[in-house]
Amino acid sequence: MSKPRLRIGLIGSGFMGKAHVFGYTTAVRVFDLPFEPELHTLADITDDAAERAAAALGFARATSDWHGLVADPEIDVVSITAPNALHKEMALAAVATGKHVYCEKPLAPLAADAREMADAAVAAGVKTQVGFNYLCNPMLILARDMIAAGEIGEIRSYRGVHAEDYMADAEGPFTFRHDPAGGGALADIGSHALATAEFLMGPAAGPIVRVSGDCVTAIATRPDGHGGHRKVEVDDIGRAFLRFANGATGSIEANWIATGRKMQHDFEVYGTKGALVFSQERFNELHFFSTSDTRGRQGFRRIEAGPDNPPYGRFCVAAGHQLGFNDLKAIEVAGFIEAIAGQREEPFGFRAGLRVQSLVETIQASSRSGSWKDVP
Amino acid sequence: MSKPRLRIGLIGSGFMGKAHVFGYTTAVRVFDLPFEPELHTLADITDDAAERAAAALGFARATSDWHGLVADPEIDVVSITAPNALHKEMALAAVATGKHVYCEKPLAPLAADAREMADAAVAAGVKTQVGFNYLCNPMLILARDMIAAGEIGEIRSYRGVHAEDYMADAEGPFTFRHDPAGGGALADIGSHALATAEFLMGPAAGPIVRVSGDCVTAIATRPDGHGGHRKVEVDDIGRAFLRFANGATGSIEANWIATGRKMQHDFEVYGTKGALVFSQERFNELHFFSTSDTRGRQGFRRIEAGPDNPPYGRFCVAAGHQLGFNDLKAIEVAGFIEAIAGQREEPFGFRAGLRVQSLVETIQASSRSGSWKDVP
Amino acid sequence: MSKPRLRIGLIGSGFMGKAHVFGYTTAVRVFDLPFEPELHTLADITDDAAERAAAALGFARATSDWHGLVADPEIDVVSITAPNALHKEMALAAVATGKHVYCEKPLAPLAADAREMADAAVAAGVKTQVGFNYLCNPMLILARDMIAAGEIGEIRSYRGVHAEDYMADAEGPFTFRHDPAGGGALADIGSHALATAEFLMGPAAGPIVRVSGDCVTAIATRPDGHGGHRKVEVDDIGRAFLRFANGATGSIEANWIATGRKMQHDFEVYGTKGALVFSQERFNELHFFSTSDTRGRQGFRRIEAGPDNPPYGRFCVAAGHQLGFNDLKAIEVAGFIEAIAGQREEPFGFRAGLRVQSLVETIQASSRSGSWKDVP
Amino acid sequence: MSKPRLRIGLIGSGFMGKAHVFGYTTAVRVFDLPFEPELHTLADITDDAAERAAAALGFARATSDWHGLVADPEIDVVSITAPNALHKEMALAAVATGKHVYCEKPLAPLAADAREMADAAVAAGVKTQVGFNYLCNPMLILARDMIAAGEIGEIRSYRGVHAEDYMADAEGPFTFRHDPAGGGALADIGSHALATAEFLMGPAAGPIVRVSGDCVTAIATRPDGHGGHRKVEVDDIGRAFLRFANGATGSIEANWIATGRKMQHDFEVYGTKGALVFSQERFNELHFFSTSDTRGRQGFRRIEAGPDNPPYGRFCVAAGHQLGFNDLKAIEVAGFIEAIAGQREEPFGFRAGLRVQSLVETIQASSRSGSWKDVP
Repeated sequence: MSKPRLRIGLIGSGFMGKAHVFGYTTAVRVFDLPFEPELHTLADITDDAAERAAAALGFARATSDWHGLVADPEIDVVSITAPNALHKEMALAAVATGKHVYCEKPLAPLAADAREMADAAVAAGVKTQVGFNYLCNPMLILARDMIAAGEIGEIRSYRGVHAEDYMADAEGPFTFRHDPAGGGALADIGSHALATAEFLMGPAAGPIVRVSGDCVTAIATRPDGHGGHRKVEVDDIGRAFLRFANGATGSIEANWIATGRKMQHDFEVYGTKGALVFSQERFNELHFFSTSDTRGRQGFRRIEAGPDNPPYGRFCVAAGHQLGFNDLKAIEVAGFIEAIAGQREEPFGFRAGLRVQSLVETIQASSRSGSWKDVP
Repeated sequence: MSKPRLRIGLIGSGFMGKAHVFGYTTAVRVFDLPFEPELHTLADITDDAAERAAAALGFARATSDWHGLVADPEIDVVSITAPNALHKEMALAAVATGKHVYCEKPLAPLAADAREMADAAVAAGVKTQVGFNYLCNPMLILARDMIAAGEIGEIRSYRGVHAEDYMADAEGPFTFRHDPAGGGALADIGSHALATAEFLMGPAAGPIVRVSGDCVTAIATRPDGHGGHRKVEVDDIGRAFLRFANGATGSIEANWIATGRKMQHDFEVYGTKGALVFSQERFNELHFFSTSDTRGRQGFRRIEAGPDNPPYGRFCVAAGHQLGFNDLKAIEVAGFIEAIAGQREEPFGFRAGLRVQSLVETIQASSRSGSWKDVP
Repeated sequence: MSKPRLRIGLIGSGFMGKAHVFGYTTAVRVFDLPFEPELHTLADITDDAAERAAAALGFARATSDWHGLVADPEIDVVSITAPNALHKEMALAAVATGKHVYCEKPLAPLAADAREMADAAVAAGVKTQVGFNYLCNPMLILARDMIAAGEIGEIRSYRGVHAEDYMADAEGPFTFRHDPAGGGALADIGSHALATAEFLMGPAAGPIVRVSGDCVTAIATRPDGHGGHRKVEVDDIGRAFLRFANGATGSIEANWIATGRKMQHDFEVYGTKGALVFSQERFNELHFFSTSDTRGRQGFRRIEAGPDNPPYGRFCVAAGHQLGFNDLKAIEVAGFIEAIAGQREEPFGFRAGLRVQSLVETIQASSRSGSWKDVP
Repeated sequence: MSKPRLRIGLIGSGFMGKAHVFGYTTAVRVFDLPFEPELHTLADITDDAAERAAAALGFARATSDWHGLVADPEIDVVSITAPNALHKEMALAAVATGKHVYCEKPLAPLAADAREMADAAVAAGVKTQVGFNYLCNPMLILARDMIAAGEIGEIRSYRGVHAEDYMADAEGPFTFRHDPAGGGALADIGSHALATAEFLMGPAAGPIVRVSGDCVTAIATRPDGHGGHRKVEVDDIGRAFLRFANGATGSIEANWIATGRKMQHDFEVYGTKGALVFSQERFNELHFFSTSDTRGRQGFRRIEAGPDNPPYGRFCVAAGHQLGFNDLKAIEVAGFIEAIAGQREEPFGFRAGLRVQSLVETIQASSRSGSWKDVP
């Protein structure tokens, strides 16, 4: 194995921390990457926690000092999966020492912060990545390519939703996700719905240029963890009407109190010649309607993911066997590593994270004012 | 058969004219009705057309003079399935001679007209009906009853859509449905989405009290039938954010250019203890999620229509055999006839038709002004 | 209405008796039939029962004497929906007086009886019908036509099932359906699975020529209604391997103890160029896979029933609105009436009923012997 | 990382070779394993092929001499993914030098060979594994546990299928899978259907004790790669009727010419109190019907995989995110490694592989004789 090493420093070891590790681990075997990732150092809140996680996840070293990790000259890439409020400080510190940075979404609580981070990365000449893993799904890539190629004609309308139920219990505690600075369903999962909308529609319909927002707090207070209740000011449901540059219109909904929904990241796109319908609940399928099918034989067709849909074939040579959530993360990692090697553009760099954050804030501002807003 | 006769006069013999006849024909056999409907007279544009239709559909007489039909003292009920613009004149004339009136939706192009019609009917003491047949589905009745009984807890959010593709072809001609006075997708099929939303949510969440509309013309001009093109001013897509009286929020979308969709009259309702999901594309099913199911055994459950869901058992004693669209129409007719006999309230009288029309107009006004509007 | 009358005498007024009436009622309005059916006389076990049913269903007269009904010279058609064991006597009596006969399936408990009935009908020159209503579904007609036209290439294999749960409760009583002479799941619902298999495969793959049966009694005894239990000798589950004339192979399963299934009358047909998949649980859809679709865009396509699928358009001019079970019965009735008028062949005459009965008996014989049998 | 190393030698680097590597790679990060697998040596047909694959997959050494690999005292585990005909020789050689062996299915072309292999492994005291990865699905484990716990009552019937279309093209060449010694659809994929049937039914209904087979060659000859055609003697479709020890009955079908099917590894199990329905096409879902649900609220419930279904939670802490095919392989590997450490029984050792092979051969023998056979 003569490949150069890419030494990873990971901050955080929860859901997303593990997902990053699984991503690095799988990516290096599945793809023919220019670097061999090496799990170098893991930082967590305490030394103990860091050591346990490092042992479990295969890192050579552990630390409770993320500043040290970020400054360590042996480390090439910093993976940030700490709470949102820390993203900015960590990323700026890593960028300042010339590290490439892979940061979980949302990039930062506020667009202004995200902009500062994106600018710093450009200035430092490092590569960046934000974790919009749903966009790594071969079926979303297929959908985007079909739309761009005109397979469903000119695009007229879009309907997107991202609904889950992890905040449906009103007795669930107040967390950092409820923090007025950057929290709420729209920021947390609506960001996925918005990223998907622009990813799919962009090449054919252009970006979202104007929005009308409807952000709703459905659960007024939540337990504060000290026997009392704390007022919730962020949205549990965030909706928006959308205008795309080409005149197409649409809507998205983010809802984290949708009882029974675990992963309803769905969309429907309608064009002059066809339609595409997708549900993340069955994310290895894309449903395609085409008016060019023979009359009397038309219908929504269930395309199953297979080697015709790169990079599916890297994982499995036979169609219909299905990728999993962690596989999407491996595709995300692979794209980032290829970008570090200069083999491709950053798939979803800080600039893309900033863009989503701007959409979120514009929708929030529109909701507060009760009127349409142009997206800056 | 000693039942009293109920003599029907039908105006119009197209899609909905036939559906009314099928409704009367089936209802009398399936239900134990207080009257025996008799197909008395059919009116159409010309004598010829009327005679052909009367023969085909089983009416004893035919006429091209709807005024005569309405005035005929032998007739008890007038079924109006003529173009929308004529509904008001016909209904008022029928009401004036003491006839019960069954009018296809939308009741009238404008809420003001609908109000006049509703008031006239009340003043005359006749029974009225507007054709919201989707509400007659046993599975919608089940959904409403489950919501009302609290089976999914307190209601928090609603998502409704009615999408079809019958106007998707930009070369389809300008018709009365594109008339600025009363036309457009929101009025034509959004009326169904709104009727369903209030039907389901009403008992538990109260009526819709406030809306924000987004009405879009996607196809700017249509062939005028004389070699030229005519500007379209009505919406091809009408969306709205909704507020219900209890604070629940939601949205609906009406879209008649949704390529590939034939009957996407769907909804999702989320409560604190569960959810209901429905698609008219498979309208004999209701999907139910309940947090009271055993942990690890929860999931959306596909309830198939059966005799436990009245009036399904009238049609078939075994579950899973499925009702058809015309059966819904028969249920609608039966409810109307029972109301005429004083056995129940009017299921969806002119007052209900007016209500839907008001919602439509408020959404349109909101869209024009770009701001939220209270529903009068 | 100058159409000649076709006077109907109905024997029995249960599930299928009502379905016949709904069929006559709807057929005459939906189709342009050569005759106008008239509900003349209804016969049931007692005068009381007959009178109540006649009033409810719209018959002019009632009787407890089916012999009289059959002999009544005013009656043109006899509809037999009495228990299976009586079919033969009733049908032979009706045929003897020159009546056309519409008999519910199974035509007779034994193939020998069915043959006698079919021969008598031919000798008398009357038209006959057996109630295989599932075959009247426009989507089954579409499937048959697609197979016959080679749209899925040469046919290689078939998988059929008819599963319900109406006998799943071991405490359900012993009924005529458990009678060793003609009872059992294979005879009762396997007959549908077999009729569908030959209906679809016939034109392309020829009839079933050889079978291997597996008939199983899963519930050994059932309550006899007198406090004791009676031994069950018929099958609760009947399976068969099939050989078609062209060499294609397949299987069917009939199962009336399939807990949770209400109407699983499903099939999958695989050819060299495609496949068709169908479920009666969603009987307005047919799923079609074609290898001639563009590579990377292939998949099972959900064709929704519409006016392109005759006679759907008779019921509704718009696709996706869906037919119901009773509509299938109306299509069945219409075909029979057209056959009486000489406008077409009998859709499923006694000869077709005999054919299915022969298949059932050959499978049963094969199961008893544990070896393959040629179908006579 | 002080865990002891487990040095892996892999023979073969195709579809399944890669899947083994992905399995080892993922398993070590996702699970807390007693050993750290080390990719030691990869053997392939030529030195060149082996070196390329070793570099791509991360093995330290490469060789074209599998005998050397098997004899290498540094290696602890041999993974065999070479063509079926070589499994026996390789496995016996590996076992002889005290290696643990992980062999792809089918274990050997003939049950007699499989028995020899299983006996040798027991005699040598090594651990073995056969690649029945579908059984590693958390939803199959859930199904088995629900059946064993009586959640669907006493088991009455079973319907299984494994259908794909990778042999549907009659111009596809003759391969080792068509070899009369051990080839055919029943051996290749029917083995999965049989393994799943016994895995699920075993605890509640006991093993399969008697079968009636129907093995069919649908494509008579295939291109021999030298311009001619070679006669095919193995089955393209293999069906069987089944008897379980408790008297429950069932059927399976294996079909590798099912045009359009990519992974139809499906089952339906019916009990006295409920049913389970599963499709590998959507393998993160299990559909559950229970008669203990409230009347009028019953239906098949779509349970989505989540942390309640171990070991799903190892991969992802949130439900509905979905595992992929390679994740199943990682679960398989983890179970094997735990068995090597003596922490659990071998999940699917050579003895289990032999069992499946015996079922396959008994079905084949039954098909040839046209009569039922007891399973030895």
